[in-house]
Amino acid sequence: MPAPHALSITAAADQIRAHQLSPVDLVRSCLERIDQLEPRLHAWVTVNREVAIATARIREEEIQRGHYRGPLHGIPIGLKDIFYTAGLKTTAGSPIYADFVPDYDATTVRLLKEAGAIILGKVQTTEFAATAPSPTRNPWNVEHTPGGSSSGSAAAVAAMMCPGALGSQTYGSTIRPAAYCGCVGFKPTYGRVSTHGLFALSWNLDHVGLFARTVSDIALLLQALSGYDPLDPATENVPVPDYTNGLREPKAPRLGLVRDFFLEKASDETRKHMESVAERFSRAGATITEVQMPTSFAGELDAHFAMMQAETAVTHRERYTEHATRYSPQMQDLINKGQKITTNQYVEIRRHQQRFRHEMNALCQTVDALLTPSIPTPAPKGLATTGDPTFNGPASFAGIPSLGLPSDVSSNGLPFAIQLMSSAFTEERLLAVGKWCEAALDFQQAPPLD
Amino acid sequence: MPAPHALSITAAADQIRAHQLSPVDLVRSCLERIDQLEPRLHAWVTVNREVAIATARIREEEIQRGHYRGPLHGIPIGLKDIFYTAGLKTTAGSPIYADFVPDYDATTVRLLKEAGAIILGKVQTTEFAATAPSPTRNPWNVEHTPGGSSSGSAAAVAAMMCPGALGSQTYGSTIRPAAYCGCVGFKPTYGRVSTHGLFALSWNLDHVGLFARTVSDIALLLQALSGYDPLDPATENVPVPDYTNGLREPKAPRLGLVRDFFLEKASDETRKHMESVAERFSRAGATITEVQMPTSFAGELDAHFAMMQAETAVTHRERYTEHATRYSPQMQDLINKGQKITTNQYVEIRRHQQRFRHEMNALCQTVDALLTPSIPTPAPKGLATTGDPTFNGPASFAGIPSLGLPSDVSSNGLPFAIQLMSSAFTEERLLAVGKWCEAALDFQQAPPLD
Repeated sequence: MPAPHALSITAAADQIRAHQLSPVDLVRSCLERIDQLEPRLHAWVTVNREVAIATARIREEEIQRGHYRGPLHGIPIGLKDIFYTAGLKTTAGSPIYADFVPDYDATTVRLLKEAGAIILGKVQTTEFAATAPSPTRNPWNVEHTPGGSSSGSAAAVAAMMCPGALGSQTYGSTIRPAAYCGCVGFKPTYGRVSTHGLFALSWNLDHVGLFARTVSDIALLLQALSGYDPLDPATENVPVPDYTNGLREPKAPRLGLVRDFFLEKASDETRKHMESVAERFSRAGATITEVQMPTSFAGELDAHFAMMQAETAVTHRERYTEHATRYSPQMQDLINKGQKITTNQYVEIRRHQQRFRHEMNALCQTVDALLTPSIPTPAPKGLATTGDPTFNGPASFAGIPSLGLPSDVSSNGLPFAIQLMSSAFTEERLLAVGKWCEAALDFQQAPPLD
Repeated sequence: MPAPHALSITAAADQIRAHQLSPVDLVRSCLERIDQLEPRLHAWVTVNREVAIATARIREEEIQRGHYRGPLHGIPIGLKDIFYTAGLKTTAGSPIYADFVPDYDATTVRLLKEAGAIILGKVQTTEFAATAPSPTRNPWNVEHTPGGSSSGSAAAVAAMMCPGALGSQTYGSTIRPAAYCGCVGFKPTYGRVSTHGLFALSWNLDHVGLFARTVSDIALLLQALSGYDPLDPATENVPVPDYTNGLREPKAPRLGLVRDFFLEKASDETRKHMESVAERFSRAGATITEVQMPTSFAGELDAHFAMMQAETAVTHRERYTEHATRYSPQMQDLINKGQKITTNQYVEIRRHQQRFRHEMNALCQTVDALLTPSIPTPAPKGLATTGDPTFNGPASFAGIPSLGLPSDVSSNGLPFAIQLMSSAFTEERLLAVGKWCEAALDFQQAPPLD
C-alpha cells in the first residue's frame, strides 16, 4: 500500500470518506515528505505545520460526527505565495512583502477551506509571479529549472509533498512548470475561477492554475473553485458540473494536432515524441486531424508580452514608485517597458486579443480538443531562467482552458508533456478528453527522489 | 384602414403574408410619405428609390411563388449612413466620405436582405456617429433637436417614413433620439448584434441600435440581426428566441425604479411624469421597488467619455492625420482629448468598465428590469447640440440591453420616454417586460405632421 503522501486526491478522498485514512495521518505523511525533500527542492516558503495538523484534527472529528464536506475534506493543499491567506505570511516572492501577513483569504482559499481542504503551506513563486526565478529545483534533476512562475506548486505536487496545489498563469506559469516537473497542470477559462485576493500581474491575462497528479483530481479542485465571485469582475456565472462521482466517461476524442508553430519550434526529440503520441492516440481510437492556428496568431506572442508589460506597469505603479530598487532587474525591465506602451498600442493589443479569442474559440469548436506539446523541450539546465512559455501563451491570451499532461521521459531523464486546449467554458469536455489521453499515455514514472 | 406607411412591421407583415398588401405598395406609400415630409425633416441622406421599388417587385413575385422569407419579407428599412451598403453611398455624415460607395454590405445589412427586408435608403447621422449634429429636425417640433447620433433613424420612424430603421449607440445614440422623437428604441447586449461594416467609433462601446414603433417590431428586427459573426470578434454565440409568432406572453413585471441620479437629474416635469408612470404600472399589477446604482457608478460618466475619446482617437488615427481640417471642431476636440489619455488611464478605465458591467448585471438580476426616464427632459429647443445622453450611457458602458418607450407628451408638446434595462443576454425577458409596459402606457399620439 502506498504511503499516504503518494495518494492522489481521489484515492485519498475515497479512503478518508471510508474512515480508512485519517486526515491527520495524511498531513503528517506530507510533512514528513517535505522534511525529507525540501533541503534539495526548496519548494516551500512557509510550511503551515501546526495549523495544518490542528485543522486535520478538526476534519477528522467532523468525519467521526458524520459531517463529510465532500472530496476535498481533509486533503492538504499547497498555495503559491501570491494567494492572500489570513494570518499566514504571503511574500509574493518579493523582499517588499517578506513579512506581509494578509488579514483575509483569497476567494479560492476561502472556497478550499469551506470544501474541507487543509492549507499545508505556501509554495515558492517567482517574484510577483513574473520572470525572476525562485530558489525551487526540478525534482527530476536539481540542476534543471522547475519552470515558473508557479515553480513551488509544480515541484511540490510532482515530488508528492502534497497531492494538489494552486498556482497561477498569466503567460505560461502553470502548464510550463507542470510539464517540466511531470505533474498535471490546468488553466481554466478566463472568468471561471476568481482571482480576487491574488497579487495581480495583468488583469486581462491572470488566471488561477491548478496542479495535481491526475486529471480526476483536477476536476475535484475545479469544482470547488469555480463560480461567479462578486469581488472579481472578470468571473462569469457559468455552471460547473458535479464531479463528485468522477469525470464524464471519456470517449475516443477528435483531436486537432497543431503542426504550425508548435511542432516547428519544438526540438527534434519533442517533435518525434509528439508524433509517436499522436500515433498512439490514433491506435487507441482517437481521430487526429491537423489544424492551423488562426490568422490572428500572427503577432500574438508580441501582443501578449506587451499587454502583460503594460498592465503590470499599471498594477505595480504605486508600489514601484515607492520601492523601485527592491525589484529585480528583470521586473524593473518589464515595468519600464510597460510604461512606454502607448494608449494607441494598448487599444490595438486589446482588439487583437479579442479577435484572437474569437478565432481560437472557433478553431477549438472544430474538434474536441487541440493537441500540442506543452513545452518546446524538457526543462532546460540551469536556474537563471524559468524556460520558454510561448507554447502556453495562446491559451492565456485567448482565455480558453488548457490542460497539461506528462507524456513520457526524455533521453536526459526529464519529462515530456502534452497540452490540450478547448473553447471557453467547455472544461467538462476538456477534462473528459484529458482523462482519455491520460489512460492512453499511461505515464507511471515518478521523479528519482528516493 | 391606415395608409401602408402607417402600419407597424408586425401589421404590415401580417398583410403581406396574407396577400393583402403588396411590398410594392408599401414601399410606394413610404416614398410618398418621404416626399411629403422630407423638406421639413431632413431625415434622409439617400433615398434608394428605384432599387427599393425593384426589390419590392422581386419580393412580391417571391410571395406569388410561395417563397415567403419571414416577417421582414417586403418590409422597408432605413439605415443610418454609417452602415456599409454595397453600391449605395455611405457618407458617415462626413465630407471626407461625401462620395464613398462601399463594395460590401455590413453584416446586419446582409442579414436584413436575406430576411427579405427592403433597404429604403440611408438616413442622417451626426458626423461619424459622434456629436456634430446632422440637419435632421424633430417631427414633433422642427425647432427642437431630434437627438443624435441616430437622428435620421429616429425621425424617419417616428414620422412614419419607414416602419423600422437601424442606428447605433456608443453613448446614448439610440435611446435618446428615439425618446426625443417618440418612437421605440432598442440597444441589444454588447456582442448580440454584429457591428462589422459600420464606421467604428469605439470598439468596447459601439452597439447596433434598432428603431420601430412597437416592441413586437423590435423583436422581429432583433431576431433577424442577432448572432455570432466571424467578422466581429465581439459577437457571442448566444441563441436568440424565435419571435415569428410574437413575443412571450408578458406578465406584470418586477421593476426596479432607479431614483438616485436619474430622478435627481431629471427636470421637475420629467420626475413627476415618472412618478405617475410608476404609479400607473403599480396599479396595473407591477411590483415597483426602488434600487440604487452600484458603487462603481461613481465616475462612470467620465470613464465612459474618456474610453470613447481614447478609442475614437485610435479608430480615426490615420484618417485624422490625413484629413484633420475636414473634421468638425467638436470631433477634433474629441480626438485631441482622446490622444492625451495615457495607457495607465485607459487600463484603469477598462477595469472600471469590467467592474461596472459586473455590478450592473448583478443589480439587474434582482428585478425583471430597471426603470428610469430615457431622458432628463424632452427634446431641447435648438439644433446646435443633440441633447444630454447621460441617462443612456450606463447601459452602453455596461453592455446590457436597454429599451426606450414613448410614455406621454409633455406640456410643450414633445414626448417623454421611459428606459428599461436588464442583464446581458436577457433580451427575451426585457422585450416581454417592454410589451407589458407598452400596453400599460397605451401611448397613441403621433407627431403633428399632417
